[in-house]
Amino acid sequence: MLTKEVIIGVDIGGTNTALGVVDASGQILHRALFPTRKAQNADDFIVRLADSIKKLQQKLSQGHVLRGIGIAAPTANYFRGTIEGPANLQWGEVELVKKIKSQFDLPVALTNDGNAAALGEMHYGAARDMKNFVVITLGTGLGSGIVVDGRLVYGENGLAGELGHVAIDPDGRECACGRTGCLETYVSAPGLCRTAFTLLAERIVPSELRNYSPNVLTARKVYELALMGDAIALAAFDYTGQILGQALANTVSNFSPEAIILFGGLAEAGEFLFAPTQKYFERYLLNIYRGRVRLLKSRLQNGQAAILGASLLVANEIA
Amino acid sequence: MLTKEVIIGVDIGGTNTALGVVDASGQILHRALFPTRKAQNADDFIVRLADSIKKLQQKLSQGHVLRGIGIAAPTANYFRGTIEGPANLQWGEVELVKKIKSQFDLPVALTNDGNAAALGEMHYGAARDMKNFVVITLGTGLGSGIVVDGRLVYGENGLAGELGHVAIDPDGRECACGRTGCLETYVSAPGLCRTAFTLLAERIVPSELRNYSPNVLTARKVYELALMGDAIALAAFDYTGQILGQALANTVSNFSPEAIILFGGLAEAGEFLFAPTQKYFERYLLNIYRGRVRLLKSRLQNGQAAILGASLLVANEIA
Repeated sequence: MLTKEVIIGVDIGGTNTALGVVDASGQILHRALFPTRKAQNADDFIVRLADSIKKLQQKLSQGHVLRGIGIAAPTANYFRGTIEGPANLQWGEVELVKKIKSQFDLPVALTNDGNAAALGEMHYGAARDMKNFVVITLGTGLGSGIVVDGRLVYGENGLAGELGHVAIDPDGRECACGRTGCLETYVSAPGLCRTAFTLLAERIVPSELRNYSPNVLTARKVYELALMGDAIALAAFDYTGQILGQALANTVSNFSPEAIILFGGLAEAGEFLFAPTQKYFERYLLNIYRGRVRLLKSRLQNGQAAILGASLLVANEIA
Repeated sequence: MLTKEVIIGVDIGGTNTALGVVDASGQILHRALFPTRKAQNADDFIVRLADSIKKLQQKLSQGHVLRGIGIAAPTANYFRGTIEGPANLQWGEVELVKKIKSQFDLPVALTNDGNAAALGEMHYGAARDMKNFVVITLGTGLGSGIVVDGRLVYGENGLAGELGHVAIDPDGRECACGRTGCLETYVSAPGLCRTAFTLLAERIVPSELRNYSPNVLTARKVYELALMGDAIALAAFDYTGQILGQALANTVSNFSPEAIILFGGLAEAGEFLFAPTQKYFERYLLNIYRGRVRLLKSRLQNGQAAILGASLLVANEIA
């Protein structure tokens, strides 16, 4: 499909935007990273993204030919090439494919970050040879990519698979999407921190977390304290895993997948999150699915799956 | 596909089993009905089902040739031809296709009742020309059939689409499946009655429902009292619609369908259920889906969609 040709894969996250030059074997030859949120607005972001792509182009060796740009982003619409009002970025609707195409004379394709991660896992990661699986991306938000019968589920409008905005409790936490109780308000890096503060308010056990304000606490800090045995940090991971396990049991009742793959920054907290997620997942699974659905960790490095998947998206289109 | 050939479609419900002789144009020429629950166990049920099929065979005119038997049932596994421990029938796993085939020298196919209803709606009902939609069947339980890109979603094990067992509240009502908080414990004929008793306990408003015990109250009686303006009956429908509307908003975040179609006995309560379902559905929908997903009533007569769909299933297989 590609010979010495390469594709630039872009992963637009709620916090950072990561870019990579990907070759035909899925190797990332060059990388770039810039903070998504420093952009004033969508137009400013597009200027920064175009700059970053141009700098990567300059790094290409003589033998490399750039064949396209694949982009993964939250609430991306594959059919329309638009980003449609992501909850974590106050951008409104952005005609991203059109605007990037106007600056680069190349094929450009856009999909949901979760869908891109699913493509990455299917070709290079934990979902090789699988036809029915779900990838959950855990970072600033909770994204998902759903594969049924070997194909990504886009739905009628290209917007399927927003599992981060499945409401798990209609009276629950406020979400940036304007509703309440969305899964990602509990299961995400900020969700973990919110849980920590709820637990600090409920319990009287000493915790190093009592020294942190909501404005400075990060999921990484909760993880570091969990490593040191902090009771609240450990309980915050357990609760996050409980909510995720319950939600994934419901996901199975929808799709009956072979596996669910956890991926992303928060998933890298390893057993602190994975163990309770698995425990509650098995506990809440409907009897007909028990023992039939594997919960797996991503087999791709964090920051790679969406870049690889985004590059596969455009590679498939120009094939 | 069929000329003067006919197929017997069977719809195994939690209360009744309905059969129909279906011709190529989707007309039901002969019907039969018997109570599912009177069967002592799965083997006894199969005897009754085989008897009923034989009686329908005897009614066929000379010009008709029976080409197959299509069966719809809860927790049916299309791939394996088995019913796998339905929550509303204490049957355990039943090798239904094998057992029916051993008595009739004909093609036999089995699918989830919700999937059969979806096939029926797609070919003869409200989903004609749709490629992405969800059918919700409301009766003794809550079933579903999910169509993505024109194809039924079976998942890895043939068991996808058990939306009645999506848990909407892990601390909620006990379900016959052994878990708690399943959607169908709220949204189904028995769920409506359970809600009525909860409301009777919470509120002091007079209600004709205070004359009924849990053992005798039926969803039909709640409907009749709602028609007469009974406050608790009306509130029970409103609450049922709220829970259903919230759940369907979550379904949209999974599948991004063009429409959701309500079907079955409880759906026939008309506006008492439909109006609050629609109100809460629109209220809880994620912004990117608003105005893009229609909530529709079935265009098929109750008792027809699953029979038609089951017949289509086997018609497709022998085509």
